[in-house]
Amino acid sequence: MEKAMEMEAGRESEVTCVDFWANEFGMRVRIALRELGVAFEYVEEDLRVRERSDLVRRMNPVLHMVPILIHHGRPVCGSVNIVEYIDEVWGEETHLLPGNPVDRADARFWADFVDHKVFGAQVRFLESKGEEKDELVEQLKRLEEVLGDKAFFSGEEFGFLDIVTIPFSSMFHGYEQLGRFHLDVECPKLTQWAKRCKQRESVRAVLPDDTEMYELHKHLYGIE
Amino acid sequence: MEKAMEMEAGRESEVTCVDFWANEFGMRVRIALRELGVAFEYVEEDLRVRERSDLVRRMNPVLHMVPILIHHGRPVCGSVNIVEYIDEVWGEETHLLPGNPVDRADARFWADFVDHKVFGAQVRFLESKGEEKDELVEQLKRLEEVLGDKAFFSGEEFGFLDIVTIPFSSMFHGYEQLGRFHLDVECPKLTQWAKRCKQRESVRAVLPDDTEMYELHKHLYGIE
Repeated sequence: MEKAMEMEAGRESEVTCVDFWANEFGMRVRIALRELGVAFEYVEEDLRVRERSDLVRRMNPVLHMVPILIHHGRPVCGSVNIVEYIDEVWGEETHLLPGNPVDRADARFWADFVDHKVFGAQVRFLESKGEEKDELVEQLKRLEEVLGDKAFFSGEEFGFLDIVTIPFSSMFHGYEQLGRFHLDVECPKLTQWAKRCKQRESVRAVLPDDTEMYELHKHLYGIE
Repeated sequence: MEKAMEMEAGRESEVTCVDFWANEFGMRVRIALRELGVAFEYVEEDLRVRERSDLVRRMNPVLHMVPILIHHGRPVCGSVNIVEYIDEVWGEETHLLPGNPVDRADARFWADFVDHKVFGAQVRFLESKGEEKDELVEQLKRLEEVLGDKAFFSGEEFGFLDIVTIPFSSMFHGYEQLGRFHLDVECPKLTQWAKRCKQRESVRAVLPDDTEMYELHKHLYGIE
């Protein structure tokens, strides 16, 4: 009986992350978990397959989307939402979000900007086969302004907005190839920031190979 | 000198909310401020005028959108973001967001659902002059499921998700008129919930008259 309860407790504390290796949103969750040293099981959901798995449909019945974090058997959905959850549950000595309300609000505002403006511009850029690069570069320049001369978005420490943004750097190589421009010329500080982030183990462990990432997107968007 | 410093301190603690009376997103901010008893100055931004004011363009240079909360001279943008900020700064005895991480994550997930799914369905419904009502009713029914038999979304207490959702009830009358259906038949629990919310002073003070709200939207969407 005691044994059974132990097992039950063990199972309840298990953390599962359901995601696809090339999902720019889901990578955030895996980086955040690693940053806070949370052990987790990874379940791959192949987004190239049209039909979502039973697990995804059961755990996110509203949107059928990944990433999903499953903790104590309960799902948490939405990548920024999950990163906030991870910070609230496992952020003890280290916190991912800034400590004061106005900096937190700023960070959340820019996270939303990345989700909508940067991602939207990326989609239009890929759909245009690289023609529509001006908007993408403009949004990246705006992000670079937010970064300024700081090492990371919130200052000296790698944190929430870095985690939200760094997955997009795995497409920087693709941007350059398809748009025929040099990102280190257009956005030198952002390029340096991405290099700094990639020195972290959490980021290196999660970010896919740049070339594979671009190859996948060429396939998804029908780019020759 | 002391006098000057006092004035400075006084000025710094001033809170301004820039919004448009019929903005379903901005009403959230005004309700949240009233719920937590925060005194604020209200500045109307007429969204029927194409050009945004200097204040809005200066305070939200990225998106030029309202609502904007200005506190200590610093802007906070994005309605859900602002409600979280208000809770973090002024939520002492009363908190708007639920206390535990999983309930907070749930509340944030559904706030996002309201922002994207419900609002998106409303726009398509109005653009279709009432033809496309099925999706709207479906999304409202989903919200009703989340509410279940509870008095408010988080249980017995009026809180974050109620504040996020209740502004949409000012269009319920418009939905019924344009879609020719009875919301209390389709979503009886949601209708009762809206009535309960409207008994609160914070909500009554902020929600516009149903008929005026519908008249404005008829005008905006070219409905005869």
